[in-house]
Amino acid sequence: MTANLSRIDGARVLADLHALRAIGTYKSGVHKPTFSEPHLRSLAWLVERLPEAGLAGGIDGIGNIISTSTKDGPKLLAGSHLESQNHAGWLDGPLGVVYALEAARVINRDPDMKGAVEVAAWCDEEGHFGHFLGSRSYVGGVTEADIDTARDRNEGKSMRDALRDAGLAGRARTRCEPGRHVGYLEAHIEQGETLESSGLNIGIVTSIVGIWQYRIAFTGEQNHAGTTRMAVRRDAGLALARFCVAIDDRFPAACGPRTVWTTGRITLDPGAPSIIPGAAEMLFQIRDDDPAVITRLEDLLRGMAAEVNAQGRCAVAVERIRTGAPALMDAAFQQAIEQAGAAFAGGKALRMPSGAGHDAQVLATVMPAGMLFVPSIGGISHHWTENTADADIVTGAEVFVDACRRLLAR
Amino acid sequence: MTANLSRIDGARVLADLHALRAIGTYKSGVHKPTFSEPHLRSLAWLVERLPEAGLAGGIDGIGNIISTSTKDGPKLLAGSHLESQNHAGWLDGPLGVVYALEAARVINRDPDMKGAVEVAAWCDEEGHFGHFLGSRSYVGGVTEADIDTARDRNEGKSMRDALRDAGLAGRARTRCEPGRHVGYLEAHIEQGETLESSGLNIGIVTSIVGIWQYRIAFTGEQNHAGTTRMAVRRDAGLALARFCVAIDDRFPAACGPRTVWTTGRITLDPGAPSIIPGAAEMLFQIRDDDPAVITRLEDLLRGMAAEVNAQGRCAVAVERIRTGAPALMDAAFQQAIEQAGAAFAGGKALRMPSGAGHDAQVLATVMPAGMLFVPSIGGISHHWTENTADADIVTGAEVFVDACRRLLAR
Repeated sequence: MTANLSRIDGARVLADLHALRAIGTYKSGVHKPTFSEPHLRSLAWLVERLPEAGLAGGIDGIGNIISTSTKDGPKLLAGSHLESQNHAGWLDGPLGVVYALEAARVINRDPDMKGAVEVAAWCDEEGHFGHFLGSRSYVGGVTEADIDTARDRNEGKSMRDALRDAGLAGRARTRCEPGRHVGYLEAHIEQGETLESSGLNIGIVTSIVGIWQYRIAFTGEQNHAGTTRMAVRRDAGLALARFCVAIDDRFPAACGPRTVWTTGRITLDPGAPSIIPGAAEMLFQIRDDDPAVITRLEDLLRGMAAEVNAQGRCAVAVERIRTGAPALMDAAFQQAIEQAGAAFAGGKALRMPSGAGHDAQVLATVMPAGMLFVPSIGGISHHWTENTADADIVTGAEVFVDACRRLLAR
Repeated sequence: MTANLSRIDGARVLADLHALRAIGTYKSGVHKPTFSEPHLRSLAWLVERLPEAGLAGGIDGIGNIISTSTKDGPKLLAGSHLESQNHAGWLDGPLGVVYALEAARVINRDPDMKGAVEVAAWCDEEGHFGHFLGSRSYVGGVTEADIDTARDRNEGKSMRDALRDAGLAGRARTRCEPGRHVGYLEAHIEQGETLESSGLNIGIVTSIVGIWQYRIAFTGEQNHAGTTRMAVRRDAGLALARFCVAIDDRFPAACGPRTVWTTGRITLDPGAPSIIPGAAEMLFQIRDDDPAVITRLEDLLRGMAAEVNAQGRCAVAVERIRTGAPALMDAAFQQAIEQAGAAFAGGKALRMPSGAGHDAQVLATVMPAGMLFVPSIGGISHHWTENTADADIVTGAEVFVDACRRLLAR
């Protein structure tokens, strides 16, 4: 009887996800950097599916797909992204796109269901060229100058060249129509172990944490690794290592209960085995849903840098290169997901914050937004071993489609 | 009167060094990686100079130039290298080659001077493709299989491709003729501050330290930087940073008076700002002229790794990838340099070990070898600001040529 309410086709959802997994396969995951051939082929795959959901749409000038329905009634925007991190998992992004596509297939052609779901695939959520460039373009947060300066973080290729090579140069960028949508709904794997370890099926996202990112650069003196006595060295790499350890030792006393911090990249210059590094750089990130905690930690970070500079052996500069304010998810969206979870997941749902950034935090700046999580096996993500049980994928789809129906019926 | 003994032309020596500095110029230094166009042009420059020194020679199958004289009497082999570290100094290598060339110009055409100096330029002393591949090839320490597997440490280009592109594929590699040479003499900048800070002109090298190099690889668990709680992380990058700091804290209690150790390169995998590194690697080097000290430090290093593995959060593997035994310089060569220093540098000379590796340590395995140092301004080397005063360069040339004369006259 609940099946009649949603009439989703679980086999079709799984088949779509496997079709996308077969494009740019890497081991049991995928490798689809933004604007890579597999990413573009995945976008083309989605464009081909749109008509069967009563939708029209193509790829816009920044690589977004934002489809539209001519059906009467309210419109709900739903989706995620199709590019991946390097050598990463098959569900991070595609799950939310396929759930949205399934919701559109179920709802848009059914005159008994009110309104329509419009599917979106946001470009570069994974940040190969920037931060949420696709969704930020849609809400008006990306200038042409921003695109002029954007570069692939791995290859160094300019975004202009990538857009040209993808055949997207000169295309218009779709901007949101104020008032068109009742809001935005996105589904994603949890990327953590909370649901799995609690035996739950659905995460109801309450907020998305902010991400603050820093470039921390050390300057010492490049010299010969054999002839320079230890006592007179100014080794920028060693200063960086000591700073990493000091952060790990001192942050716990100042952080919040859910704060996380990560040094994701370290580079020594020149990086030769027989040369004392004269310069070193680390990319450092802090995430929390409380800006007061971030402020406290950034003050600590700058104070620690001042101590290093005071010692005088190496100089260190802390530059904040990204500031992400936390985003609150809409209360009515949380309620709709909760009701759908009661109907299709036996109420095995939990309200929780998202430690990862998602396009929903960008959409939340212009319309009500909500997010739904399904369990991740072992909490693994951003790795090719990322996975979710088929049964959990199907249950998530049923809850997602029912939540869409409830949001459109209000 | 001393001038008559050597009859070197200081202006000619400086002009030759500036001619080589003008090939592959980088700021006030040079950028001449092994087999790069500026390196090959520098080799061609030397081949053109050989006849004016009564020498014949070309580039052999591994990029060495080993010239020969038909003059009667004893032969002394002398030289250094013409490639550079990346973006490095103008004297590291060329100084020793130009001194040898000047000695050959002064001695080989003079019937009143006994014997001849044969000039050598050893390929890849700076280790872009390996370790002393040129001089080791000359003494018989490099197999064809070694060349098959050698790759450029920066570009990854295979040595076979580099030799082919340089037009050297298929050329024979010159091997040393046992008994042909009375020995090998090499001049180099000190690459340290001892001579400058003591107001001395000449370093008489007593030994060349050994270099032991290690690849230290850490394995943790790659995961999402936002959703993985600090308590459950297995961050390979953080484990590496803690290991670097532990080395710096614990080595001083176990090292010798002149031991140096360096972490020259660090890589985190995958190296993305939002991913906890699942793997990390450091290139680590220890130098000392006492193998017992090295053994003690390697035991300490492996013991520290065992402690990390025992903790179980991340795994670490220590692999020795280079073993360089210390080399003693010949006593008669040290005496000849000392006597030349008394005659041409007012005795402002000091016996000292070399903290840097040089081709002389390889030649020392097959013939008597000696090395002479001139001062380095500020002790800087392996950096484009490396420099030596013109007057010190000329004094060094006079001492070098007189030392050659004394070694041939014995």
